[in-house]
Amino acid sequence: MNEQNTNKDKQEKIFSIAVKAVKASRKLREVGTDEKRKALNTIADLLDKKADDIKFRNEIDVEAARQDGLGKALVDRLILDEKRIKSMTDGIREVASLEDPVGKVLEKKTLPSGLEIIKKSVPLGVVAMIYESRPNVTADSAALCLMSSNAVILRGGSEALNSNLAIGHYIREALQATAIPSDAVQVFDDTDRELVEYLVTMKGLIDVVIPRGSEKMINHISIKSSVPVVGHGKGLCHIYIDESADKDMAVNIVHNAKVQRPGVCNAVETLLIHSSCAGEILPAVCEKLSASGVELRGDEKAVKIYSMNEASQEDWSTEYLDLILSIKVVDSVQEAIEHIERYGSRHSDAIITSGDVSRDKFFAAVDSACVYHNASTRFTDGGQMGLGAEIGISNQKLHARGPMGLKELTTYKYLLSGSGLVRP
Amino acid sequence: MNEQNTNKDKQEKIFSIAVKAVKASRKLREVGTDEKRKALNTIADLLDKKADDIKFRNEIDVEAARQDGLGKALVDRLILDEKRIKSMTDGIREVASLEDPVGKVLEKKTLPSGLEIIKKSVPLGVVAMIYESRPNVTADSAALCLMSSNAVILRGGSEALNSNLAIGHYIREALQATAIPSDAVQVFDDTDRELVEYLVTMKGLIDVVIPRGSEKMINHISIKSSVPVVGHGKGLCHIYIDESADKDMAVNIVHNAKVQRPGVCNAVETLLIHSSCAGEILPAVCEKLSASGVELRGDEKAVKIYSMNEASQEDWSTEYLDLILSIKVVDSVQEAIEHIERYGSRHSDAIITSGDVSRDKFFAAVDSACVYHNASTRFTDGGQMGLGAEIGISNQKLHARGPMGLKELTTYKYLLSGSGLVRP
Repeated sequence: MNEQNTNKDKQEKIFSIAVKAVKASRKLREVGTDEKRKALNTIADLLDKKADDIKFRNEIDVEAARQDGLGKALVDRLILDEKRIKSMTDGIREVASLEDPVGKVLEKKTLPSGLEIIKKSVPLGVVAMIYESRPNVTADSAALCLMSSNAVILRGGSEALNSNLAIGHYIREALQATAIPSDAVQVFDDTDRELVEYLVTMKGLIDVVIPRGSEKMINHISIKSSVPVVGHGKGLCHIYIDESADKDMAVNIVHNAKVQRPGVCNAVETLLIHSSCAGEILPAVCEKLSASGVELRGDEKAVKIYSMNEASQEDWSTEYLDLILSIKVVDSVQEAIEHIERYGSRHSDAIITSGDVSRDKFFAAVDSACVYHNASTRFTDGGQMGLGAEIGISNQKLHARGPMGLKELTTYKYLLSGSGLVRP
Repeated sequence: MNEQNTNKDKQEKIFSIAVKAVKASRKLREVGTDEKRKALNTIADLLDKKADDIKFRNEIDVEAARQDGLGKALVDRLILDEKRIKSMTDGIREVASLEDPVGKVLEKKTLPSGLEIIKKSVPLGVVAMIYESRPNVTADSAALCLMSSNAVILRGGSEALNSNLAIGHYIREALQATAIPSDAVQVFDDTDRELVEYLVTMKGLIDVVIPRGSEKMINHISIKSSVPVVGHGKGLCHIYIDESADKDMAVNIVHNAKVQRPGVCNAVETLLIHSSCAGEILPAVCEKLSASGVELRGDEKAVKIYSMNEASQEDWSTEYLDLILSIKVVDSVQEAIEHIERYGSRHSDAIITSGDVSRDKFFAAVDSACVYHNASTRFTDGGQMGLGAEIGISNQKLHARGPMGLKELTTYKYLLSGSGLVRP
């Protein structure tokens, strides 16, 4: 009986959050571009002003994480210092300066029947973000959702609860002086997992769920959710060095894609190299990687060319997110494509070649969100690709593929006009 | 032990179908526009030639349906006569003549970093269609999927099994003489429901599931599926007659939207009318509807203006798909909008008004795929809206909204080129 009551309370709590978001999203439809920009700048100003309090709340999280024995890298991701808060508020101001994605006429036509059709971009409505650790995601996501006229429900990780609540509190406080209702941004004050499971079944109230975190978390959300999900999934990225590749270019690109920031989804995890150039190019590639502390794991042929550990079958499907690279020697661009099709995550894959035929074949056959030629996979990023800030990187095919910026936070509707038109 | 083996067999059967589809979809990426058009015309020719056999197989289904005591309307939807087969093959030829949605350059830019980005339309990959009764959907969907370079797995209703298998058989036979592999079209030969449940969990192999049928079926599929779903959902469409509406226009539009084809999702189910004009316009509207045999169910105010049954609370959320109309008198466009927000299905809703202010308010606030001004809701249809044939009508917001034609069966990928670019 008690448990039933608790469940009912939880469900009602989530329902009430969702209804508030829907109401705010309806008001948001009437807020103009300038008012949105002004509101975002007001938020950034208040967060700057309250930086000390945010740092204070953040220290509670950081201290708890240290006491819980969280790894150094994870603790580091949690920390909000002066510089990171400044970068967070700069990010909000940048979003405020981007083009408004809402209200655009995407198509306009008059049909033979006399029906006039306008296809117009509109907000999605209510976005639910579910994410882990880094508290700046709270501010980034709020800014992107508001600029695209969406209400947002933010559910961060339990380890960042105090930080997220502080940021959420000041965002809502800042909104009180603007045209946007405060309920357009709601931050979960409870990290009970059951609440999330209720949240993702609020179909009809919530329009999209964006999970951002581990593959396990994303899969769990996808299975539980009745609301459409756009997942920010894993990146098992490949670089293929073709027989006609430039040696220096190959060395630099592989090094950049592996070493510049190994813990992110667009870093390379597997190197494929054509057998005809492996003897010449692979040692130079390995030399430079080893010098940066990268552990190399090669297939039978690779270990004969350069001394390294042997790769196991499991390596080809592992996203290391670390200074580790698996290496396989292949006999053709076709074999490289087949390997990517089998083990890749449809995120970002690159070919290094001076041959147009290989490039075109790779471009046509590799079915990933971002396919590269003679460039590092590290460019898969909203900022780098000129989309502005991003709320995530989708490696599913529906709705949005690759970096999701403001435009990907909108949908469209058709406005159809006649002068008494009926269907014959 | 036995049951476990059966489940394993079923899973393997579905896995094998999905793998064949994936292989076919990879080959399809290389098939050009002319080859696709030629293949569709070859299919249409063979289906015409085999019309007698298709009718013969169809009669088995129709006879079984009669013996099972299926309603007259349902039996009628099953029947494939000469005329319907001709209309089906004409439909395939029409799809063959549409613009190829694949390989289009959607955006092209060079960023300050020197990175060249091309955003290009590509097929979704493998589409799984789950639908009920009408066997022509088998041919329509196959044509649309092939023209958009997708492989398709078709699972129709058990009552149309023989008809669907016959159509599928000749489509595959026709494909043997074309550049498209036969496995690009696979029709389920077994209507065991468990098979469908395995099908919709083949994430990574199947890219999208399109359920088309009852709301119950769509909800069931949405819950079971780990693959993204684009549902062809219910249509609870409204027409609002504003105070400045033209009387004759209102009478004609409401009559057309209710009577012209009451069993479809874009027919009107609820009429809202402004109190200031209800006295003058409502009797004329009701008169004409009654003359066509429409049962009217009004709220308190409506029944005082014209003699009709009283509507219950349930009526406002009922999709009749029949000659029944619920009627409510409201005091403002705002009240009409709020009713639509509360009870509507975000499909198609119309305002009849000569006032720009009311129209603009309605256009901005009503959050439906298709919002109409002075026109019948019956135009929500791929053909009527100039999209060509449609595979369904989506009333969700992600990926596709409203009629889904060829373009909505594609996604995009980014092709990024540099000359040795690395991220600084």
